[in-house]
Amino acid sequence: MVVTNNSGPLAAVLTGPGEPITLHNFAKPNVKRGEVLLHTMYSEVCGTDVHIQQGKLAGVPYPIIPGHFAVGTVEETGGDVQSVSGRPIIRGDIVTFLDVHATCHRCWQCQVNKAPTKCPSRKVYGVSHSSNEGLLGGWSEMILLQNDVAITHLPENVSPLRFIAGGCAMPTAVHAVERGKVGLGDIVVVQGAGPVGLCTGIVAYHSGARVLIADKSTVRLEAAHTLGFEVLDLSTSDNAQSLLEYATQGQRADVVIEATGSPSAIQSGISLVRDAGRYVVVGHYSDAGSTTINPHLDINKKHLEILGTWGVEYIHFHKAIGLLARKELTPSGIKIEDAMTTIYPLHEVNKALSDVRERRVVKAVICANSGD
Amino acid sequence: MVVTNNSGPLAAVLTGPGEPITLHNFAKPNVKRGEVLLHTMYSEVCGTDVHIQQGKLAGVPYPIIPGHFAVGTVEETGGDVQSVSGRPIIRGDIVTFLDVHATCHRCWQCQVNKAPTKCPSRKVYGVSHSSNEGLLGGWSEMILLQNDVAITHLPENVSPLRFIAGGCAMPTAVHAVERGKVGLGDIVVVQGAGPVGLCTGIVAYHSGARVLIADKSTVRLEAAHTLGFEVLDLSTSDNAQSLLEYATQGQRADVVIEATGSPSAIQSGISLVRDAGRYVVVGHYSDAGSTTINPHLDINKKHLEILGTWGVEYIHFHKAIGLLARKELTPSGIKIEDAMTTIYPLHEVNKALSDVRERRVVKAVICANSGD
Amino acid sequence: MVVTNNSGPLAAVLTGPGEPITLHNFAKPNVKRGEVLLHTMYSEVCGTDVHIQQGKLAGVPYPIIPGHFAVGTVEETGGDVQSVSGRPIIRGDIVTFLDVHATCHRCWQCQVNKAPTKCPSRKVYGVSHSSNEGLLGGWSEMILLQNDVAITHLPENVSPLRFIAGGCAMPTAVHAVERGKVGLGDIVVVQGAGPVGLCTGIVAYHSGARVLIADKSTVRLEAAHTLGFEVLDLSTSDNAQSLLEYATQGQRADVVIEATGSPSAIQSGISLVRDAGRYVVVGHYSDAGSTTINPHLDINKKHLEILGTWGVEYIHFHKAIGLLARKELTPSGIKIEDAMTTIYPLHEVNKALSDVRERRVVKAVICANSGD
Amino acid sequence: MVVTNNSGPLAAVLTGPGEPITLHNFAKPNVKRGEVLLHTMYSEVCGTDVHIQQGKLAGVPYPIIPGHFAVGTVEETGGDVQSVSGRPIIRGDIVTFLDVHATCHRCWQCQVNKAPTKCPSRKVYGVSHSSNEGLLGGWSEMILLQNDVAITHLPENVSPLRFIAGGCAMPTAVHAVERGKVGLGDIVVVQGAGPVGLCTGIVAYHSGARVLIADKSTVRLEAAHTLGFEVLDLSTSDNAQSLLEYATQGQRADVVIEATGSPSAIQSGISLVRDAGRYVVVGHYSDAGSTTINPHLDINKKHLEILGTWGVEYIHFHKAIGLLARKELTPSGIKIEDAMTTIYPLHEVNKALSDVRERRVVKAVICANSGD
Repeated sequence: MVVTNNSGPLAAVLTGPGEPITLHNFAKPNVKRGEVLLHTMYSEVCGTDVHIQQGKLAGVPYPIIPGHFAVGTVEETGGDVQSVSGRPIIRGDIVTFLDVHATCHRCWQCQVNKAPTKCPSRKVYGVSHSSNEGLLGGWSEMILLQNDVAITHLPENVSPLRFIAGGCAMPTAVHAVERGKVGLGDIVVVQGAGPVGLCTGIVAYHSGARVLIADKSTVRLEAAHTLGFEVLDLSTSDNAQSLLEYATQGQRADVVIEATGSPSAIQSGISLVRDAGRYVVVGHYSDAGSTTINPHLDINKKHLEILGTWGVEYIHFHKAIGLLARKELTPSGIKIEDAMTTIYPLHEVNKALSDVRERRVVKAVICANSGD
Repeated sequence: MVVTNNSGPLAAVLTGPGEPITLHNFAKPNVKRGEVLLHTMYSEVCGTDVHIQQGKLAGVPYPIIPGHFAVGTVEETGGDVQSVSGRPIIRGDIVTFLDVHATCHRCWQCQVNKAPTKCPSRKVYGVSHSSNEGLLGGWSEMILLQNDVAITHLPENVSPLRFIAGGCAMPTAVHAVERGKVGLGDIVVVQGAGPVGLCTGIVAYHSGARVLIADKSTVRLEAAHTLGFEVLDLSTSDNAQSLLEYATQGQRADVVIEATGSPSAIQSGISLVRDAGRYVVVGHYSDAGSTTINPHLDINKKHLEILGTWGVEYIHFHKAIGLLARKELTPSGIKIEDAMTTIYPLHEVNKALSDVRERRVVKAVICANSGD
Repeated sequence: MVVTNNSGPLAAVLTGPGEPITLHNFAKPNVKRGEVLLHTMYSEVCGTDVHIQQGKLAGVPYPIIPGHFAVGTVEETGGDVQSVSGRPIIRGDIVTFLDVHATCHRCWQCQVNKAPTKCPSRKVYGVSHSSNEGLLGGWSEMILLQNDVAITHLPENVSPLRFIAGGCAMPTAVHAVERGKVGLGDIVVVQGAGPVGLCTGIVAYHSGARVLIADKSTVRLEAAHTLGFEVLDLSTSDNAQSLLEYATQGQRADVVIEATGSPSAIQSGISLVRDAGRYVVVGHYSDAGSTTINPHLDINKKHLEILGTWGVEYIHFHKAIGLLARKELTPSGIKIEDAMTTIYPLHEVNKALSDVRERRVVKAVICANSGD
Repeated sequence: MVVTNNSGPLAAVLTGPGEPITLHNFAKPNVKRGEVLLHTMYSEVCGTDVHIQQGKLAGVPYPIIPGHFAVGTVEETGGDVQSVSGRPIIRGDIVTFLDVHATCHRCWQCQVNKAPTKCPSRKVYGVSHSSNEGLLGGWSEMILLQNDVAITHLPENVSPLRFIAGGCAMPTAVHAVERGKVGLGDIVVVQGAGPVGLCTGIVAYHSGARVLIADKSTVRLEAAHTLGFEVLDLSTSDNAQSLLEYATQGQRADVVIEATGSPSAIQSGISLVRDAGRYVVVGHYSDAGSTTINPHLDINKKHLEILGTWGVEYIHFHKAIGLLARKELTPSGIKIEDAMTTIYPLHEVNKALSDVRERRVVKAVICANSGD
């Protein structure tokens, strides 16, 4: 890892698929009207970052500064800037922002299909900006928020570390649970106890559901257990259906939410859903191949709903932050920032990335200014 | 075909899978309190009847009298009987009935899952009653409606032949269109121009959609065209997507409704749906094998909804009849009873069945008392 | 209060509007096929019972045995009887039942309007059965459950006292919260801290909402506070809107739920709802007069939804029981059976009734067999 | 009416409440990047214009050029400009546009409440732009579309006159019908046969409903009748309920949609809705005073939904235009441009306004360049 020596903010740059991340100094940005410069506190490493490094995500304009979720303190603002709730943003405030911006609000996807996550103008911090455009990613000592970015203060009782422990997984989970129309009294099975799976469990729990989380990784099952969830331990039996029926006295799930990314999870997951239930696919963020399905048995006769879940909108981000402010966030009462996170300084970002890829940690957090 | 000679009503009996249908005289039923005896006018042959004869439907208690949809005149009632709308049912009235009855209203499926089409007590005329139980199927000169059957008069401007031309396909279509949340201005593609496909087109049209129907059979495409639908002619090109984009100046469908029963239709159909659209599976009423799907490309990234559609409830039957009363039922103004039906007397029921199986006709109607 | 002396079960009878309740012995019922005889543990006194005694509810066939919610042990069954979940009901089991039964499942309201709470055949234990028909109300040592009554076991971790502490208010609350489409992150204001209001707060809390409860009664505000809710104290200020905006830094509610029964609550409640929010009316179970509304300001310009909530279905009852099984039911962790209930033996039912009418207690529970 | 003599485009200006409209020449605008200059074909006079002239609408920045809906040919574009569907906008194209623009997409209303019609930044052509800002209203020979305005071409089979005959009433009607969840087989009563009422009837008809329109004005009833609707003639009887029950053999409406603006319509309209039905308020665009409602009888016991309907979004505008392209737009087949419109040249705009105010015409259309 090469670090240059000038005095501007340091940022981690990924020059192309398969390349190691290197640190570089950037010029301190000139903050224009409506923009906000953040002094980064935390960013995160998520599964998408792994896919980006592996070159599995289409349309990434390498070189980039990765990191799409972050939280920091306001260093400077370009004149008067307000948060989404209309509160002034002042130097020193602790704020975060939605990584997605630049949706056009005028195209067919935005206006007619009501699918802004499909807007062709849409940009994402840490994913679809080149590092040549500036400090537009989270793995950096500073981040420049352009004038159309939706910014919000953290509520008093949400610490920056708690926020990043949820990270991008939490709004994704809100979206998935909403797609699944999870409600009071539903039995919900989550496939996969990674960050998205665990957050999905938390969101479903706070929507009134009974939640069971299935995985075969011991590390991940333990995390699920620590957070207070019932688990379906697939390391001892691959018959998820009988594990579920044992736990529920013969019932199946009202909703199953896939958060594994594995094609083989699909048919197995569908078998756990009751007739006329719902199956949500949220883990397949990159192409891991195809699988087999029986249209009669798996869909038509079962009167099943299958619901893909792509991207998040501000509303999901907003609800995620609101949820983090709840006193008892997990069924066990254990804090997610204690149970789920491992913290790395910025210069260990390659280790963080490989630990996530090898599933040695549940959630890697990047402390961008570890000298602070 | 053997016909016995006593004087009771004649009914068609299917003794087992693969057997020909034979006609038998039954004793005229003793009409108990709350029951209604119908003098049958028309019944129909649908795809499910073909599957029943081929032994492809599970749980059929052979021997049975097939025919689940029918219309007739009231011959006798067991005391005062009322229609669903509270109107007295009197000798001579022209009425029809929902084939499904005996749902328990007390079980988990009925009360908790709100999926009465999955109630284990549910019975269906012409499908799940043995002929040993009596005249409980439509291919018969008389039908006995038990005291829990939902009965309704035909509206004045719905002729018995128009009713049966819609037949069971029409409420199935209502259910499929409702599952697909088809609304004003939607582009809807229907895969398959059989009775369910054509009725689905009609229902979607009256829900405010622009409808295109895809098929490769010339007979069926002609029926779709006669009824006034735009067609995607798959006999000349198997590239449904380019046919659709040509017809719509580059758009894809908000909703695609599968009404073919063919596993290969699934992936082809999904490719026609726009991002964040809906795909309804209604044609897979029996197991025709599996197919391949890519969870990332076909579901997650596409933000797709896939919706199975099993059975119908009274509300769909009710709405179907209401729809048949509309003055201009089809886009072309051509009547469905003129464009879709071929009439067979009861003693030609085997021919009707084979004509449906071989797709020589769109819809076979059984005239149960052809001597009338 | 006159008590007769024979040996059959004792029940409380209300002979007409304005009359005191008297106790009478009834013959022990002959249990027919499919019926279940309960040895009553607890029943309750709710606001509707007060209205029934005051003659404010239409269509009550006095004399009646009041009490529509109850829990008890099985004394005897008429052959094999199953719960809704299919579990056999055996002598000694602790069970409860939905008070509503006899909906016909065949009429326009049941089948077309999907409004079974409006079915003309619908009967309610403790409300629409005369005591001449037998032990069909909860204020009785024994209750006879007819063969169409939906019966369910209490889950292991729901004690009979906890069940009755929720009582009829809990499924009503489930219905109200569902009507209001309350979801994760919503700000919900409940008007009225009686049993329905408090239960509504609990259900909304478990649906992911932030809940504030408004009242002016000190007893009721204290109950709300004890259960852990934020309160809007209308005893010190009648300006609910400024209290709310103070608590929320200027926001109004996504959903306001009326649980007071007072006509003046309507306009005040609507003023608390944000633009494009929802206002649920659930407290107006009897006619307390009219009020004034401005269609432009209160409804149209506000883009408001107003949602009446009549009766409950089994699904609401089911979800209520499921919710009671949650470990942490209230925001404070205080048990509702500790915070909300006052227990009266059967022979003090008149006192219970007047204490509820005069709002001296939050919830009066009748211990039907206090000698047990 | 004073007309100045220079050579720029002529526009009608309303200087303040109660003032007559006068015509003025404006300088031909300088078309900036992303803007489009329209040569106006038609604009319209709607009820809101009457309210604006009477000073009944809050926040109007007089002087203004009224006219919020219009259609015209493209005179000039500021560089490459695209329609919402991505089609280039070229000189000579016939286009129209959504009057609402400048919603911020970043505030609480836009992002969290999902109520962009409540965004404080929202601007409306012909309503919330001062004439000092330029040609930003429809009653003008030219209109300047700013670079954030959503523009669309008219479909081939929608003539400019047909478009303006629907005018702003059509998307409003789409919104109202959507709020009312009108679907196949619903009985819908529309209160008021003005432009919004008639368009609501048309949209409900194309959503599969049976539509009855109630009014007491002979002119308006005749328009409703000409378009092919069933009518409830309130000029001969004020008992709308008995008229409805006569027409429907005793049923009431699934949905009633208020399009009168009269407070007394509310209670009368609610009485027409069946139990568990829906009541949509769309006519109360200005404050016409209060009315009385009984929370028990009108809302709670009735299990009613009441739904206010404020403003429109692009999706409603889009669906309205799609609907206008249908071959058979009205039940009778009569064209709306023949049955509903009276055309006035720009210099007769005061007469148009008074004819609308006095209800002498159903819909007044302004032909902005009558010399063309």
